[in-house]
This record gives sequence, structure tokens and C-alpha cells, in this order.
Amino acid sequence: MDPSALAARTGRVRERMAELEVDVLLLSLGADLPWLTGYQAMPLERLTMLVLPVDGEATLVVPRLEAPRVEPHPERFGILAWEESEDPVAFVADLAGRRPQRIGISDRTWATFVLRLQDALPGCWWLPSSLVTAPIRAVKDPAEIDALRRAAAAADRVATQLVGGDIPLVGRTEAEVSRDIGDRLLAEGHQRVNFAIVGSGPNSASPHHDAGPRVIGRDEAVVCDFGGTLDGYCSDITRTVFTGRPPIEFRTLYDVLEEAQAMAVAAATVGTRCQDVDLVARAHIHDAGFGAHFVHRTGHGIGLEEHEDPYIAGGNTVPLAAGHAFSIEPGIYVPGRFGARIEDIVVATDGGPDPLNRVPHGLALVEA
Amino acid sequence: MDPSALAARTGRVRERMAELEVDVLLLSLGADLPWLTGYQAMPLERLTMLVLPVDGEATLVVPRLEAPRVEPHPERFGILAWEESEDPVAFVADLAGRRPQRIGISDRTWATFVLRLQDALPGCWWLPSSLVTAPIRAVKDPAEIDALRRAAAAADRVATQLVGGDIPLVGRTEAEVSRDIGDRLLAEGHQRVNFAIVGSGPNSASPHHDAGPRVIGRDEAVVCDFGGTLDGYCSDITRTVFTGRPPIEFRTLYDVLEEAQAMAVAAATVGTRCQDVDLVARAHIHDAGFGAHFVHRTGHGIGLEEHEDPYIAGGNTVPLAAGHAFSIEPGIYVPGRFGARIEDIVVATDGGPDPLNRVPHGLALVEA
Repeated sequence: MDPSALAARTGRVRERMAELEVDVLLLSLGADLPWLTGYQAMPLERLTMLVLPVDGEATLVVPRLEAPRVEPHPERFGILAWEESEDPVAFVADLAGRRPQRIGISDRTWATFVLRLQDALPGCWWLPSSLVTAPIRAVKDPAEIDALRRAAAAADRVATQLVGGDIPLVGRTEAEVSRDIGDRLLAEGHQRVNFAIVGSGPNSASPHHDAGPRVIGRDEAVVCDFGGTLDGYCSDITRTVFTGRPPIEFRTLYDVLEEAQAMAVAAATVGTRCQDVDLVARAHIHDAGFGAHFVHRTGHGIGLEEHEDPYIAGGNTVPLAAGHAFSIEPGIYVPGRFGARIEDIVVATDGGPDPLNRVPHGLALVEA
Repeated sequence: MDPSALAARTGRVRERMAELEVDVLLLSLGADLPWLTGYQAMPLERLTMLVLPVDGEATLVVPRLEAPRVEPHPERFGILAWEESEDPVAFVADLAGRRPQRIGISDRTWATFVLRLQDALPGCWWLPSSLVTAPIRAVKDPAEIDALRRAAAAADRVATQLVGGDIPLVGRTEAEVSRDIGDRLLAEGHQRVNFAIVGSGPNSASPHHDAGPRVIGRDEAVVCDFGGTLDGYCSDITRTVFTGRPPIEFRTLYDVLEEAQAMAVAAATVGTRCQDVDLVARAHIHDAGFGAHFVHRTGHGIGLEEHEDPYIAGGNTVPLAAGHAFSIEPGIYVPGRFGARIEDIVVATDGGPDPLNRVPHGLALVEA
């Protein structure tokens, strides 16, 4: 990561801290920390936390045994490596300044650290750090868009194998197919697999189904929703295939879904409110009689995190801006029978919505 | 999971809530929730939370689109599935009862939910749920010990391949070897890979090194620390191998480490305080002149979570009890040169310490 880009981000964060009268940010788990420092905290019981005051020096408090993993940037933050016998919460409280103030803490910081910090810093006003960082992080710069595009292209190569029937399905368990998809994500350039949902038959109607021991049969819908991290940025794509000849009810459902997805992508123009993009997909599915079976929002932002701002959901009145990157992923789920979802990552640009995923949307019939 | 075992656990938790005057537990991310319900929350921005009052009915608040994943047990908890347009925090606050009270919240709950719940439930006293659950969870029952033993045996089969030279190292990147070890953990029966640290050459001196792009060479130390989840319970083992002929300084270091690890295992008897087990390893390494290079605690508890109580660390005065399961994993790290760590999972029993991992500890010289 270019150090000057990191420094520029810190500058914008501090401007917004001043606007919102936030005195200090405490950044631990989640993407704010790597976005500003290049360093990612381990999700463990040993606290890692960047103390970033609105003015003055920032300090990364890190367990001694993880300190060798930190690339030093003394011009941007100091490093305080704590020993196993020491209390990192006391160090953070000292660095933050033990006075009543407004503190932004990483959204994903563990509760146990929040509570200990609140004890150590009584009388403070606590806010999630995303209040400061999310609107800045949501607008991707060209290098970030390029990284998302490369991640999407890698995921597309796996999705192309899926819809082309090159990934065996029938006779394998969902878990086996999930692992296979994960291996293919890595083979196509991802450094990490984040998830690979495989829901077959009735499980295709459970949007967040775990890939499990169920053996995939013939004449079944199979929802595959997968993504990983490539050069720090996330991919996320869903395609639904059918192992054989779909019944007419499924074809109807799928056609409505395909139309709704395309309509929502087309609606994702700069200036359109997120909730209105959501409504485009929702209204079309509702009008076709499937309203009760679309049980989730239309999409979520994506970047360093799989899910981040902007959320394409009812109630989100934020207008899309050039550089916003997000999923468009309506789904229709008939409990106990079958379901389908189609998902692409889209970037809002001044020239209109730019879908990063390019795998065809038509229902793929696979026999394998 | 046997429903009567889950019900018995809930009973013990409620007894301890009463003792500690905790009025309600709010359980989200982490192992407390699956330990009591069999259901694991997804680590996402949609809140899943079990509201468990000390008396009365428990309710699992879950996103509507994840509700199909929950196996219902109406005799033990109700299910409240919230829609995308609804506020799960308000539901949790209603169920908890909007009055000043003592609330235990899952240690790993995201800060963003802690802060919103604190806003919705003003005047309450907040505690980490582990205060209630950890001592109960730390003592494993025979079925849990059996599950840990099966996970350890599966990890042992991979470690045996490693020390036997059956996993190619020289000429591959750490990341490739890490993925290979992960595949082998799955092939040996794990359902999930939790981590596979591979630190070679100077990276072996970084205890929490990520497996990276470094190509492993000849005549290098390689620390491999890996584990996964099998039937819900975790494995965790470390072996250090040398790709060629180690220098005398490394042999000396390794001999001291091997002795320290064996001495700490032998010291892990029922009634011994955790800090005293830690001290046995630490004193031996110190007396051999390597004290400054053993920069972490001796071990951690293990079960549904990779790291949990009891921690084998300085300052932990808890005495070991029969059924405690934990790692014994001292390490010696010479920055810039090499390091080594040896780790087994051990169960304290009335008959003495029972190591679940049985792969030999002697320095394995591998040429591959």
C-alpha cells in the first residue's frame, strides 16, 4: 500500500473527526485499521488497537508476540508492544487521555474490550468508528475500484466454470462443492476464501444456508454464493443453476428474479437513493406475486470488508455517489421447495452503473 | 447435540446467574450461544442474539433470512425472526426488560451492538457473559473430552505427515504449505480449518506469523501451528521441523524447549494453579539463558473456541480441575534468525495430565 495514500486517508479521517467533534478513534478488529495502517488485527483475546487522536501522534498498541508482523511507519504511528503480564486496556486509556471526551471505537471490537475500556475511561461518550470512517471508505478511489475489478474477474472465472457445468454437483455433498469452489477461488488468484454457500434442493430456499452434508440430486436448484479476498479487496457473486429440467414454477420465479436484478442494476445511478434501488427490485418481485418470498435487502457495499456501506436497503436514504461499490442481489425463496438468487458487484459511476461481474444471468441447466 | 445436555447446561448457567446476580444474558457471537442452543450466529452486521433471563422463557432473536438455519427447540427457547426493515436492538431491549439490571453480554459481540444496546437499555450494569459461562464451559464433560480427542487425533495424523517429511516444504511458499496443511486437516475429518501458521527461516521467530509468499529454503526452521474444528470442537498442534542440518545453536534451543514443554505438561496436575504451570516452562527456559526469547504465555484453554479459559499464564491463580482442556506450547524465538514452538493439547484428570496429541517431540529433520 502506498504510504502517501494511507497518510491522505488519515488526513480525511481527522477532518471528519473534527467536524463530528470526535476526540479519539480506537481501532481494532474490522477494516478501519488496515485501511489506515496496512495492518490487520488478529481476532483473538489479545488486544490490538490503534489510538488515533484528532491531533497529535497515533499509537498502535499490539501484543508483543504479534509486533513482528507490523510494518513500522514511524512517521504515521508509534508502536507500543505490550507484554503478556501487562494490561493493554490501561495503555489505551493512557494514550487516549483519561478525561471525558467523545470516543469512536471500531464497530467490530469485542464487547469484552468495550466494557473494560468504558470502565477505564469513565464519563466518555462512545460512538462506533464507522460514523467517522464509513462514508469515506464507501467512496472507492481508482486503485480500489481496480482491485475490486480484479477480485470480481477472478470470481467470474469460477462462476463461469459453475454455469458451464465444469464443477461437478450431482452426487457430491454441498460441503464438498463448497470446498471445491473455495479451491478454485484460490487458484484464480484470491488469497483468502471468505465464504462459499452451496444450497441445494430445499436448502436453496434458505438464503444463508451453510454448505452441509446434503448430497445434491438431479432436478434441483443449487444456489452458489461465494467470495474471497484478493489483494485486500473482496469478491462476492451468486449464481443459481439447475441440475436437470426445472419445473415451470421455477422458470417463472427465475425469470422474475432475472428481470428484477437487471432493473435494480440499471437503477443504481449516481444520485439515486439506496432505498429506491432496493425498491425497484422489490416492487418488480412483489408485482409478480413473489413479494413474501424476497426476505432480505437488495444489496450491501463491498470493499475491504465483505459487507460495508452503502447498504442497498429500505430506509437508507443515502444517495449513490460515484465510487460507491455494492452488490445487487435479489432472491426469491419458496420454503421447502426451492429458491434462487442472482448477485453482481456494481460500481456507481458518472457514466452509469458499471457491473464488475460479467457472467451471464440466464438460468444455467447443468447435468453433471 | 443431545437436547437434555443442552437443557442441563442452561440450568447450570441460570444457577450461576443467580449466584452472581446477573438478571439476563445476551448471547451473540462466540461459543456461549452454540454451547447452549446448538446454533451459531453469523459474524455479520445483522444481529443474532439469545435473550436468556435468569427466570422465564429464553428467546432467540435472529434475522428472518437466517431463521431457516435454526433448529427449533420450543421447549427451551422461542424464536423471534426480525425483518430487514425492523430493529433487532429494540426487540432485544423489550425482551430483556427495559429496567436497570445486570446484563451479561457475549464477549465477542460487536461494539456497534453493545453501544446500541446500552443506548436502548440505559442505567444497566454490563458484564461479559464469560463471567457466568467460562468456568462452567472450561470443565469439559466426557463427551466433550471425546470430541477433543478425536479432533486431536485428526490433527496428529497431519502432524505425523509433517514430521515424517511427507509434506513438501523446500521450494514452496509458506502460503502453499499452509493451504496444503488445511486440505489435510479436512481430509482427516475436520469440518473447518481455523488457522495454519507456517513460519520459515527468520519468520519462524515471529510467533503469530501469517503464512506468506516467502519460499521455504534448505537448512531452515519451519514452525507449523495448525488446527481446525471437528464435530464442533477445536484441534491445535504445533511442531517445528528443520529442512536440513540445524546449527548447534538451534539444537541447543530446541532441546531446552522440548524439556520445558515436557516439564510443563507433567506439572499440569489437578489442583496446580495455572500460573504455576506457566512458571515451570518459563523458569526452565530462563535458566537456560533464553528467558528474553519466550514472549508469550504457556497455553490457553480449548473447546468450542480455539482460545478460552483456562489460560496457562502468569497471574492466573485458578487451580486446574479435572476436565480442564488446554494447550501447553512454550516457544523460543531469536529475532531475525530462527524460532521453535512445541504444542500439545492436554486434559487435566484425576489420574494426571493426559496429552491428547501423541506425535513425537524430537526435532524432525526433513529434506523434502
